[in-house]
Amino acid sequence: MDRRSFLRASTVGGAAAAASTLAAPAIAQGRITWRMVTTWPRNFPGLGVGAQRFADRVTAASDGALTIEVYSAGELVPPLQSIDAVIDGTAEMSHGAAYYWQNKSRALSFFTGVPFGMTSRELSAWVRYGGGQELWDEVYDQFGVQGFLSGDTGTQAGGWFRNELTGLADIQGLRFRTPGLGGQVWQKMGASVTNMAGGEIFQALQSGALDAAEFVGPFNDLALGFYQVCSHYYTSSFNEPGLATEVAVNKAKYQELPTNLQEIIRLVAQAEYDQMPSDFYANDPRALQTLVNDHGVIVHEQFPDDILQAAAGAAKEVLAEILASDDELTRRVGRSFVDAVKMLQTRTDSTDAGYIRARRQFMDYSDL
Amino acid sequence: MDRRSFLRASTVGGAAAAASTLAAPAIAQGRITWRMVTTWPRNFPGLGVGAQRFADRVTAASDGALTIEVYSAGELVPPLQSIDAVIDGTAEMSHGAAYYWQNKSRALSFFTGVPFGMTSRELSAWVRYGGGQELWDEVYDQFGVQGFLSGDTGTQAGGWFRNELTGLADIQGLRFRTPGLGGQVWQKMGASVTNMAGGEIFQALQSGALDAAEFVGPFNDLALGFYQVCSHYYTSSFNEPGLATEVAVNKAKYQELPTNLQEIIRLVAQAEYDQMPSDFYANDPRALQTLVNDHGVIVHEQFPDDILQAAAGAAKEVLAEILASDDELTRRVGRSFVDAVKMLQTRTDSTDAGYIRARRQFMDYSDL
Repeated sequence: MDRRSFLRASTVGGAAAAASTLAAPAIAQGRITWRMVTTWPRNFPGLGVGAQRFADRVTAASDGALTIEVYSAGELVPPLQSIDAVIDGTAEMSHGAAYYWQNKSRALSFFTGVPFGMTSRELSAWVRYGGGQELWDEVYDQFGVQGFLSGDTGTQAGGWFRNELTGLADIQGLRFRTPGLGGQVWQKMGASVTNMAGGEIFQALQSGALDAAEFVGPFNDLALGFYQVCSHYYTSSFNEPGLATEVAVNKAKYQELPTNLQEIIRLVAQAEYDQMPSDFYANDPRALQTLVNDHGVIVHEQFPDDILQAAAGAAKEVLAEILASDDELTRRVGRSFVDAVKMLQTRTDSTDAGYIRARRQFMDYSDL
Repeated sequence: MDRRSFLRASTVGGAAAAASTLAAPAIAQGRITWRMVTTWPRNFPGLGVGAQRFADRVTAASDGALTIEVYSAGELVPPLQSIDAVIDGTAEMSHGAAYYWQNKSRALSFFTGVPFGMTSRELSAWVRYGGGQELWDEVYDQFGVQGFLSGDTGTQAGGWFRNELTGLADIQGLRFRTPGLGGQVWQKMGASVTNMAGGEIFQALQSGALDAAEFVGPFNDLALGFYQVCSHYYTSSFNEPGLATEVAVNKAKYQELPTNLQEIIRLVAQAEYDQMPSDFYANDPRALQTLVNDHGVIVHEQFPDDILQAAAGAAKEVLAEILASDDELTRRVGRSFVDAVKMLQTRTDSTDAGYIRARRQFMDYSDL
């Protein structure tokens, strides 16, 4: 019950109690507690930490009127059933990534990130000003869910390899851990793609079951110890140019909230779309420095050109398949995304990339 | 007065009134109204719109407990006296850019953006995870002000020129409108730099008083009509790789707020650090398309190399001067910024730029 409803109810109740005795229960009864399930391990750098911070900030901004209890991966439901828990009301909300629910709608990939797709900045421009949120709402309305962007890793790293990749031939049959649409791209290129949870990757690399793996980026990858098996690190991913996290809220529960608490959820989600990338952008470079200086990792900024060429062709096939989906809404989301990326890319290429290139080439910070 | 203080006060007062009569005034008396002055014209695209949206979102999230009235440039005080209005209590807060107050501390430039400095993503990483906010607090504590990032334009455009620039020789004596540290850089390179308000630029170009001008980017520049005089548009600025806006709050007033309202101000400011760039990233490309297709503007992605080389050298001199400041705190802020940019740049260069380059070179969206 929200505070205004309580006050109306107490009026109807005709309470004659003195304010001093009424005041405490008035506040207590206005408090709402929600459960949030997540797809991340508790305190997992960047992502799990972000889910807990989301909950804490909602509680703080609402002065405890809405308290969110966090259940990390597996604590209440298995991580990849988070969205089902929200749909069936086991939890009021979840913190994860929309592309985990591709089995419900392939359109959901676009709200997390797709191979050769949008950067995090482009994604928020499309979601907030290009009709993306409205399309996302349409997709989730089918399941009674409301989704919001709640974070982003920024462009991820390309992956860990035992040996340097000299060209496309080197990835034929390569047993590579990479999930989602990116996995489909590598499969089309000739890799033997498998998926497994983050925590299982290290052992699979060590046992020889995997030749290579990509996970997130230096901040997470350092913690998982991949450098102990693979010394070649490709730091620029075409699979995940940005990986946006979401909060998915049971829509009926959301609509029951007072409007200011709805606004606080939206605000915290959007603030986290800055906070989480800030965490990654601050900590990835430090982790990469440790990987290179302390663990002798060999950094390659980009894959060889023939791999990139083949990857772009394969990514285009994957997107074309989605654009030809049987589902009218999936086709419409894909069309909006593709049209938006064509437009948004022009600014990223001509303005942002132009600056970054000029700074790198001409500005020497080394002796400042 | 906040709600909890009211409840304590009412208890002390020993009120015997029924809850039904007490409840309404409890809410009404908890309401606070603040004045926010801004440096932007009302409804100015991106920036002025962002200031109004900031106010509206605080009001909505606090359910009216904190209502912010916006006074745009000149409505309560002249725009460049906004910070003084906050310091002397004429207004509780301002929406502007910290580098406007360089006359109070040169260190403030770093929290807006400096030539060849941080991108918007790097800036938030430094402010939130690299000690930047703490240093900013130290600077503003001297004036009784609390500052927060509240938006960003993203990398700006380089400027409008009557004739194509073939090299450094073309900018000798060029009468160029560009403010702040970027102006100092162009001055060192041989341009004749002047500053004037945005609204005065068009006429100065038309009358021949100016040869060239830079302002923000396509979204704003289209509206001001510069294309009618200058047909050469350089779309990538080294002056303003990001221009962060701030909200500056009277610190004593801020500390009097209930903690949840303090948190709401922080949240809205951070959410706006995503919302405003989304607005620019969505609308700049559309505006650029109009400039090219409807007005025949000739786009150059970057200045000639010898100009960039000279600009980087001049920017380094400007930074070195700040690092040698008489003011210990200014030196310390500059040192933190420079050390942070060295680290943060590695991710931008090897991961973000690597992806953008690969997408541009290999991914063909044209027939999707």
